[in-house]
Formats: sequence, C-alpha cells, structure tokens
Amino acid sequence: MHRSIATVSLSGTLRQKLEAVSAAGFDGIELFEADFVNFKGSAPELRRIASDLGLSIDLYQPFRDFEGMPEAQFRRSLERAERKFDLMEAMGAPLMLCCSNTSPLSVNDPALAAAQLHELAERAARRNLRVGFEALAWGRHTSLYGQAWNIVKQADHPQLGLILDSFHTLSLKDDATGIAAIPGDKIFFLQMADAPLLSMDVLQWARHHRSFPGQGDFDVIGFFEQVLRAGYTGPLSLEIFNDLFRETPNRRTAVDAMRSLLYLESEAKRRLASSADAPALKPQIELFSPPPVPALSGLSFIEFAADEASAGTLGALLEQLGFRRVGRHRSKAVALYRQGGVNLIVNAQPDSFARSRFEAHGTSVCALGVRCADPLAAVERATAMRSQRHDSPLGPNELRVPAIVAPGGNLIHFVPEALGTNGLYEADFILEEDAAADVRGAGLAQVDHVALGLALDQLDTWVLFTRAVLGLEPGESLELADPFGLIRSRGVANADRSVRLVLNVSLSQRTRTARTLSLTGGGAVHHIALRCDDIFESVERLRAGGTRFVPISDNYYDDLATRIDLDPALLARLRAAGVLFDRSPAGDYLHIYTENIEGGLFFELAQRTAGYDAYGALNAPARMASQAQQ
Amino acid sequence: MHRSIATVSLSGTLRQKLEAVSAAGFDGIELFEADFVNFKGSAPELRRIASDLGLSIDLYQPFRDFEGMPEAQFRRSLERAERKFDLMEAMGAPLMLCCSNTSPLSVNDPALAAAQLHELAERAARRNLRVGFEALAWGRHTSLYGQAWNIVKQADHPQLGLILDSFHTLSLKDDATGIAAIPGDKIFFLQMADAPLLSMDVLQWARHHRSFPGQGDFDVIGFFEQVLRAGYTGPLSLEIFNDLFRETPNRRTAVDAMRSLLYLESEAKRRLASSADAPALKPQIELFSPPPVPALSGLSFIEFAADEASAGTLGALLEQLGFRRVGRHRSKAVALYRQGGVNLIVNAQPDSFARSRFEAHGTSVCALGVRCADPLAAVERATAMRSQRHDSPLGPNELRVPAIVAPGGNLIHFVPEALGTNGLYEADFILEEDAAADVRGAGLAQVDHVALGLALDQLDTWVLFTRAVLGLEPGESLELADPFGLIRSRGVANADRSVRLVLNVSLSQRTRTARTLSLTGGGAVHHIALRCDDIFESVERLRAGGTRFVPISDNYYDDLATRIDLDPALLARLRAAGVLFDRSPAGDYLHIYTENIEGGLFFELAQRTAGYDAYGALNAPARMASQAQQ
Repeated sequence: MHRSIATVSLSGTLRQKLEAVSAAGFDGIELFEADFVNFKGSAPELRRIASDLGLSIDLYQPFRDFEGMPEAQFRRSLERAERKFDLMEAMGAPLMLCCSNTSPLSVNDPALAAAQLHELAERAARRNLRVGFEALAWGRHTSLYGQAWNIVKQADHPQLGLILDSFHTLSLKDDATGIAAIPGDKIFFLQMADAPLLSMDVLQWARHHRSFPGQGDFDVIGFFEQVLRAGYTGPLSLEIFNDLFRETPNRRTAVDAMRSLLYLESEAKRRLASSADAPALKPQIELFSPPPVPALSGLSFIEFAADEASAGTLGALLEQLGFRRVGRHRSKAVALYRQGGVNLIVNAQPDSFARSRFEAHGTSVCALGVRCADPLAAVERATAMRSQRHDSPLGPNELRVPAIVAPGGNLIHFVPEALGTNGLYEADFILEEDAAADVRGAGLAQVDHVALGLALDQLDTWVLFTRAVLGLEPGESLELADPFGLIRSRGVANADRSVRLVLNVSLSQRTRTARTLSLTGGGAVHHIALRCDDIFESVERLRAGGTRFVPISDNYYDDLATRIDLDPALLARLRAAGVLFDRSPAGDYLHIYTENIEGGLFFELAQRTAGYDAYGALNAPARMASQAQQ
Repeated sequence: MHRSIATVSLSGTLRQKLEAVSAAGFDGIELFEADFVNFKGSAPELRRIASDLGLSIDLYQPFRDFEGMPEAQFRRSLERAERKFDLMEAMGAPLMLCCSNTSPLSVNDPALAAAQLHELAERAARRNLRVGFEALAWGRHTSLYGQAWNIVKQADHPQLGLILDSFHTLSLKDDATGIAAIPGDKIFFLQMADAPLLSMDVLQWARHHRSFPGQGDFDVIGFFEQVLRAGYTGPLSLEIFNDLFRETPNRRTAVDAMRSLLYLESEAKRRLASSADAPALKPQIELFSPPPVPALSGLSFIEFAADEASAGTLGALLEQLGFRRVGRHRSKAVALYRQGGVNLIVNAQPDSFARSRFEAHGTSVCALGVRCADPLAAVERATAMRSQRHDSPLGPNELRVPAIVAPGGNLIHFVPEALGTNGLYEADFILEEDAAADVRGAGLAQVDHVALGLALDQLDTWVLFTRAVLGLEPGESLELADPFGLIRSRGVANADRSVRLVLNVSLSQRTRTARTLSLTGGGAVHHIALRCDDIFESVERLRAGGTRFVPISDNYYDDLATRIDLDPALLARLRAAGVLFDRSPAGDYLHIYTENIEGGLFFELAQRTAGYDAYGALNAPARMASQAQQ
C-alpha cells in the first residue's frame, strides 16, 4: 500500500516532520493546513523538499464549513476553495479533504449539500484536482459515513469521492460493515486512527486523545477490513491528534506510526485470509505480511547491568532472596543466579552492552530473555516491524541468542524453547555441578511479571511494541494514587499468560516512580514480581534471612475486612505477615514488596490463583504511601 | 467560619498534609478514607497529631453504596459502618459523609433509602455521631441535592442531615436557589468546589478537574449565597480532586485553598449585603471581610533585574526600541527608561532584591508597578488574602511604595495614582531636565499587556491570586499549538482593561515557552506588549533603527485573505510590514513580535481598536512556528 501520514501527527517544524516521516519509510503525507500557513517557504518549495525526500503530498486538509450553506457564504467559500486549489496545484497535491460542516449557518439539506459539492468538484476538475468529503463525528448535519456517502452519490461527480476516518465512525459506535458495499474507487482516501475509550465530548476526544492503530481500544482492524472489502486501493494514512505526540521527538513518533500501519495491514490480511468468504473477495491491494507473532512461553532470564562493586552487592542481595549463584561465565565477568525456574544474570563485563547501560542508568535490568519456539522468525518479525536487531560480540563456542532492541534501549533475547534448563548456559557458563538440581531457596518458583517504569510519552510506544512485535495484548488502564501524584498502569500479556509485563507511567514529576525514571532514564524495570506457592512461608524464610519488606499499615487490614468477606484466620495471617490481598471474581492475589535494593529497583513476591488475571494494582497505593512515609 | 479542607485536595503523606493545612490557618480537615487506610499510625495517634496542629477532624469520608440496598447488602453495610464508627470515635470525627449509591444493586426506592439511612443514623446516635447524606452527580438514583433532601426529610432522624457539594449541583446545571429553603441546621456540612467548564463525563470531570473556588468557571459565590440564606452555620470546606494538586507542593496548595475560602466568603458577604432583601436575611455567621479589591488604573512601571553588564546590553536594546534613559537613581545602580507612558526600570544594584532575582533567573522582569487610588488598602487586602508584604530597604528621602510578593517571587508595587508622571521618580532619581516631556520615540505609548510564562501547576494559583488580590477577572482559556507542544493561554484584566496580564503555560516540556521557563524558574514575564496608535509607522521606525521582528510566512497572509474579508490595501500593508492581524466582531488587533532580546524575553507591538478585548492568541502559533524555524 501507499503509506501516508498527516503532518499534524508529529512534532516539529514542517521540514523536520517531513524528514522524520521520510526516514521512517513513508511514501507520502497529508498536509495539515496550519503547518503550511506557518511554513517559511512557498508551495513549490514545499513540493521540492517533499520530492527530494521521496514523499508525495497526497492530501491537502482540512477545508471546512463548505456544504449546505446559504448562497452568499457558498459563493465566498468557492472563492476560498479556488485559492486553496492554487496552492494544491503549486505543491502537487491532487486531493482536498472537505470535512462536513459544523457551522450554525449550515442547513440540513442533503440535496443542497450535494449540489454545492458538485460545484466544488467541477471547479477542482478544471485543474485536474479531486475533492474528498468526510463526515466529522461532530458535523452539524452530517456525522456518519453513510450520510456522507449518500451526499457524494447524489452529487455524482467523478472528481468527488468519500474520505473515511476510522475515528469518526468508531467514536460514535457506528456500524462499519456498510463500508464494504461502497465502490472502492469512490473512496478517495483512508485515515486510520485508534483511541482509548473515554467518556468525553467527541470533539475534545478527537482533538487530544487519538492514537496510532494498535495503541487504543477501537476495533481498527475490523474497520480496515471493511474498507478492503470495498475494494479500496488508495493510500493508507494516519491523522492523529494527540497532545503527547505534539511534543514527542518526531523520529520516534514516525517509527511508531509506521509500525502501526504494518501491524494494521498484517492483522487485516490475516483476518481476511481466514474469513469464510475469503475466496470470493475482490482482489486486494498488497498488504504487509511479516512472520506471525512469536509464540512465547515464559521468561527465560533477566539480566542486570552492573560494575564490579555493584555486582557484589546485588549478588549478596539476590542470595539473601534465596537465589544461588550456580555459574560464572567462561570468559566474562558475568554470573548466573537461580531459584526455582528463575534465572538472573548479573553482567559486570567491562566494554559490554551491559556496561554501557550501567554507565547510563546505574545498576538496572538491561535485558530480558523470552522463550519461544522459533527465535529466528521472532527476530525476523521484529525487524519487519521496524525494531532493531542487536548482535553482541561472541566469544569462542558461545551460543548466539538472537536479540532485538526494545524502546528505550534495553534488549529482548529470544531463547529457543528446545534448550533445557541449562542448555542456554552450558555453552557460555561454568556451572556448579548440581546446577540442574532445583534451587528451592525461599520458594520463589518463576517470574510472575516484570514492571517497567516508563516516561509518559513512552506508554503508547510500548503498548504498540509489545503488541505488534511480541504479540502481547494490553489489559485495562488504571490510575493509582501515589502521595505525590497519579500513576497510570497497564498490564500486557500473551494469550497463555506465561509472559506478563506491567507498564507504569507517572503523570507527575514528583512520585517515586518518576524519580526512579529520572535516575534510570525511563524505560527501566521498576520491579520484578516472583511467583511462589506459599507466600507466607516464603516471607517467613526471607525475613529470617534479613530481607525487609515494605511495611503495611494496620489500617489497611481493618479496611480490607470491611471490603472483602475474608476468613478471619487468613486476615490475621495477612496482617501478621504484612501481605497485601486482592480478589477478583475468578481468583485471589496475595503479594508483598521488598524494600528497595539498588537504584530504586525492588522485588515483589506474588501468589495467584489461576483465575486471577491482574496485578494487585489497587494495593499499589498502600505500597507507595508506605514508601513515602519512610 | 470554621474552615476545613479534605485531605485528598493536597499532595504528600497524611502527616505532611496536616502540617501544610495547619500552617495555612485552617481549623479542621475532612479525612479522606484512603489517606487513613495507608497511614502509618492508629486513629488515636492521628487524633493527637491533628490536635497538636490545632486541627479538628470534622468529617470522615466517603461511606459509599449504602442506601436503597437489598436486605443482605444493607445488613453487611451496617456492619461496615460500625467499623467506621469505631474509627471515628477513636479519632474524634463527629460526622460521616454517606454519598448516594452508585451500585447497580441499588433500587430506586426513596422510602427504602430513607428507612435505611434512619437505621444508620440510629446506629450513629448510639455513639453520639452524626451522618450526612450527599447526592453525587453520578449517583444511580439520587443525583440532585433536592432528591437527597427529600430522603433526609423522610428519614427524619436528628443525627441525619444533608451534605452539600457545589460541584455536584453546578456540574449538572441544577438550580441552587432551592437550597435557601432548607433549614440551615439540617445542612450538616458544606463542600465548595469550582471547576472549568468541560464537556466530559461528569465522574471524570469530578475526579480530575475540580479547582478551588475562584479558579474555575462555576458560580460558586451564588451557590454559597444560597447556603448562607438557608442559615447554615457549619464548616466551610474544600474537597478538590485535581490531578495537578496531587503533585503540587502542599504548602503552596494549602495557601491557595485558604485564599479561595477567604475570597468566597468576602464575595458572598458583599453580594448578600447588596441584595434587595438584605435586611430580612436570617442572622449570618461571621464572614471574612477584607478591604475591597483595589481600583487599578494601569501599569506604572516594569522593573528588570540585571547586573552591570546586562544592564548595559538591555539599556541599548531599549534605546533601539525608542526608549530614552531619562534618569538614574540617586544612590543605586538603577536607570529609568521612558517612551510615551511606559516606564521601564533597569535595576543592577548589587545586594538588592533585583540582584537576587537576577542571580536566580538571569535578566528578567522582577517587579511590576500598578497604579491605584489607595495603595495601603491594596496591600492590606493582599495580606488579608494571604499574600506576603515586601518592604525594601529605603535610602534617605526615598519614597516607600508598598509592595507584595506575587506567586513565584516577583514583586507587585502599588503606586499612588495621585503621583504625576514623575512624582514617583523625583524623590529617588536624578531626572533629565526634560524628563517630563513626552518621549515619542517609536510611538509606543503604553503597556498593552504583560505576558507571563508559568509552570503548569501555577496557572490556577495565578488566576486566583490576580482575582482575589488584584481584582482581575479571567477570560477564555485557549489552547495554542507550538511546533513542540500545546500552550494554554488565559488573559486576566481589570474592569476598565487598564491592567491586562496574559498567563501562559506550556503543557509540553519541549516548547520555547517551557524552555524559557526552565531558564527563569517559572512565573516569569515572557513578553511585554506595548500599545501604539500606528503600528506601521512604529515598525518602520524601529526597523530603520535596527530592531528585528519575528518574520511571518507569506502563506499566513494568503490564508488570512481567505479567512477575513480584508481591504486589499491593508492586507498588502500587513504583508509588507510582517504585522499579524486578528478581528473580533467588535474590533481589530494588529501586532508584531520582536526577536528575543535577553533570556527569552521579547516585546510585542500592538494596536487595538476599542472593542477588541483579546490578545491575538490565534496568531501565536505563527510566531512560535517562525521562532522554531530560525
């Protein structure tokens, strides 16, 4: 497909936007009028800049408040249109977006609207330009694509067609299936936008909170599927009004934008191919088709970046937590710690990737290893989805584990499932003789989830990255009160829940999460939750070994008893152990947090019953308040 | 009145909140339950801390989802209430807030609700506690105070009364005048909240965007007036859910909170006293009554903080702008520049207030002088409204001009109107002989407005400060697109428009405004707009003298012609001169910006016809885009 993006979707000057969009591999742009009005250069100059960057100017937008107007206003608007056509000719933009009228002067008369749009198209035709009519969700008389299509049909001019924007349809919960019946060649342009589900005025929602496909809650794939069923072969574009994108460095936004289109195309292709009527579908335009999302089956390891000194401190802390050092690297300053099925690597090798992360962020997690059936295909998909592959220098006989760079710079390694417990480490590490034996330690059996602290403008980036590259689906977005501001928290997980990440962003600069971020540059692992089968036993053992946990107020337990109908013996146990509790209809979650170990990082112990599918987020305020009171 | 505030309104741990509230002079608190649940201490300990700080615990809140429930839930809720009553007894909180039920299990049966609330009140009575029932705007069956009052009447228990919250009434545009008919002693508690007018889900609005009275758009004074007419004599309290207040340092929030109550009381008192039925009103509780808002009549001077070197640079720039140095201070390194009615003071005196500002913020505006009839009364009002008075050390025979500290630390001097052009300066300055003669310069005649760049969390603080202390009323709140993020802009002005300030905040960290702020610590003057009668002449003269203006794109003028029906000759003149244009139904605004002079500060030249009452904000994006392209 021809991939395009509206200039309003990115930050920067118009020239900077074009450069970023070109670098991300787009074919064209929609020119947002305000960007041109304030551009230091003429229309032919813009054409040349775009052309030098390999970009076409696909659309000039928006042209407002045109159709269904009294005669005097209509005549004036035609004059206005002629001036815009002048510009379009000069910059080589073939299509104008005319959005449905919002003016109180407009009248509810589809025939008049059609006649006036016909005249506009006639004027455009004289210059070999085209006009696309789009229903704004807040249009005064035309707010649905079906209404707009009726007007376009009635206007009946070859240079007039329909423009579709998924936001307007999905925000109004309108049925998109009617789109498939529209002749594909009368759809002149397609704008795809996603958004979180918000209960607010649709205009404000549209102007401030859209997001790229895959970042929000809309069924954008279903919408796109209908457009493809119509036989549409035009550009696939993004028009995203988002307050954060206005300030995010535009190179990053442009990569997210491209990834979202690739994700959208590949998912729509998959859905179409598996539909019952697949053989009967009109011939489709070529859609992007990467290898499928990897089938992940758990976290294989977590790697910490350290130097010699902090490797010692961290190692001692891990041993206190019940881990045992079961191996050291053959040639590098790297140690392997193990407990149950949890492998933690402490990497203090000078001149390594880990060391560069340590130097930038202090002791911190620098890589995750995820198990999957076909690591090479996983990396292939990731690079197709515009992630960077990462190749570390290898020592003799060392195993190459393919890796990619996650947003923010940490690595994600894809570890072949076929390797057993020690298979990954046998090549590179000198293992203790009984390394393969189960290290019971404090009963911590596996990684439950890894929580990341992200800069505010990275949440959408991570939701899309984990979805498009790793196949993790986002859960509910929650807001949690820290004593110094709000935290937004969203879990992402694969289908069988063997890989869970929690994405946390601080809306305030003053929370502990924000301060940890500023310490570690954002995109950092904030805490690691380890699963156990008997949290009381694990806590007791760890306390005996000197581990300190974040103390929980007695008032919490008094309140818990009024909220949840709990067995008094269990309540007493929770209170005595300082363990937090959450209950969903399907199951329970018991958890506790260690005090900080290094650079703001801490651990969580978690025990969950099978049906419970969340992270005890409602208890996070108890932790944050306790931490603030220390 | 007994003044109180809900703990949810401030950031920090519970203890820190209490300390801030006490320091700001409050009498009591509403305890927000979550603050207690996560508090490291028992109810008696909390009581002691509050008591040591001179604070009563006036209200325990909220108690949710109680009334109108099926029997089983009702019985469980009574148990829950008994546990809360235990806490209330232990902490000495006499009143519980029970908010209207939002549960899908609740039934629409006012008689049942009344009976169940009666039982709750009976339980409370056994412990000598009371219960207040409040209608939440999003309550399932009870959302209006009138409905809540009917249930309270029907329940008919002396320990059960009504709690009013202005947010719930005003957000639903309910009529508040019915409140006056409710017996004052059945209103157990009053929560006052303001809010900006937003088109969004009322629950989200209520949870994230409330503000202190005087900071928003609600008629909070009218609401309060009705409560006073009812004969209410209980506490006056603030329950403000606001995302920014959750992160703002709580000492500052607490001062704003107290100022908002004092403002509310004084305005309500004024309104009641001037009402037709004033003599017939029930006896009122004592309301705060400061001196009236000062009658301001223009900006007398603007003072810059500098050092020796920058004073020279700045002086040269001012002279280039048509100012003349007409005087120097008798004993200090201070110079006076003048053009038309504009007086600019450049203060480079070591060890002065100005120097301390220079050291913190570089060359920047450190004080404004406003003319008023009675400076001493103005200062008296300001200090009554919790602003700090500032007294500078005086040299022999120097004139004392009373001053106060504005939020952020700059000074506002109140200059006696009675002093003529040079009256203020004759005592302190050695003036040129013809200093009294009009300095025509480039035709800049007076200060049109002063634009401040504020940190995001200071906008509400400034709106309240300028309203309560200076009597300036806020205008519309606008959002403007900078290439690197959004700017929110709001003008405040006195009634005759002789004093106008524009408050700008950057919602992004990456705009020029934000970068200027981080340079100057926030709360800084961002630019100064000077009025002229013939902007084309002034621009021509200044250009000839070497002043450079922010260049405006030719495309801007092409677009202007399509937006506004302009005389082609005027359009050509605007284009040639690079002057921006805005039109309101009542008048025109022509303006242009100089390039930066020092530390991000710049000047605007403005020509306005009388009816135009804004600041050309819609042209700000043209300036910001141009600045970004340089």
